Amino acid sequence: MAGFPPALDRLVQTLGRLPGIGRKSATRIALKLVSSSEAECRELADSIVDARSRTVRCSECGSFTEDDPCSICTDTRRDPSVICVVERASDVLALERTGRFRGRYHVLGGVLSPLDGIGPENLRIDSLLARVTSRQVTEVILALNPTAEGEATALYLARILGSRGVTVSKLASGLPVGGDLDLADELTLGTALEERRAF
Amino acid sequence: MAGFPPALDRLVQTLGRLPGIGRKSATRIALKLVSSSEAECRELADSIVDARSRTVRCSECGSFTEDDPCSICTDTRRDPSVICVVERASDVLALERTGRFRGRYHVLGGVLSPLDGIGPENLRIDSLLARVTSRQVTEVILALNPTAEGEATALYLARILGSRGVTVSKLASGLPVGGDLDLADELTLGTALEERRAF
Repeated sequence: MAGFPPALDRLVQTLGRLPGIGRKSATRIALKLVSSSEAECRELADSIVDARSRTVRCSECGSFTEDDPCSICTDTRRDPSVICVVERASDVLALERTGRFRGRYHVLGGVLSPLDGIGPENLRIDSLLARVTSRQVTEVILALNPTAEGEATALYLARILGSRGVTVSKLASGLPVGGDLDLADELTLGTALEERRAF
Repeated sequence: MAGFPPALDRLVQTLGRLPGIGRKSATRIALKLVSSSEAECRELADSIVDARSRTVRCSECGSFTEDDPCSICTDTRRDPSVICVVERASDVLALERTGRFRGRYHVLGGVLSPLDGIGPENLRIDSLLARVTSRQVTEVILALNPTAEGEATALYLARILGSRGVTVSKLASGLPVGGDLDLADELTLGTALEERRAF
């Protein structure tokens, strides 16, 4: 890019690969960074490397944590008999913000998508079944995104789980169809959680 | 934030301080980063620190560069008799992308803003006058943002520069090319009408 020194240009390129960051945002951020102090840049750089190296997946629920198992899975005040199944770790955060769920979570890691070659074996379904079988789980809440793949995955899980004698429910409709679960506002998401229906 | 491990939470906070990045974007980026490889995170972290440490201000024009003076100021094919004055280094980039300017630049570093305590002594005005006086400068183009402060600063500079015998011009105001007449705001359309040119 004419007029931009190489290291700054590289920073713009690298920032541009982040989700939701286009060329203009990347340029704006890069210029802000080179205009700020070395200490501030070092702080951001360190927090990136630090977050990546400290953060692991909880071997129980699959969400992000520093200590395995995570604070939700080890919280004895939380009801172990209810498991809320979500697609992504960010969905756990969205549900926690509603403050209306006191059970445990299970992160699937995605949804079934035959066209993308994602089958049951690519998701954390075996570990979900293992948790349901080995623990006193009475209800599984399917909190997948209200997309075609999300619904298909919910249907698939409902069928397997139903045969294991647990109540299977899903979030109430009310979420905008085609929307993204972790972008919903707390009230809508909280209501959807409370009004979950039996499958 | 409930459910988020501390290092990840810190990263969200730090990213949230970047321009144009709100809490949701910061969360999305942070989750993407901890889900990507350590090498990718290290690359981003390095490019931030690297860009900051290599990038300096050109002592001549004030824009960002790795070698001082910058490649534009040392480019003998560029006309040294025309100086284009801009507010920010990012404006140099925008003008370079047009490919229509072959002179040199001068970055003011902002605009006059008495309410924010920014007077002439806080901008790179002395060095602009020094360049105009000591070199064969015949024209100064004021390419400041068409805001109240930008216009006031342009007026101020035009007055000082006019007394030094250089031609002072400013960017044309009017309808954006490719824009829609009935979508233009009244001020823009009024200016376009007043500053109409003979065909």
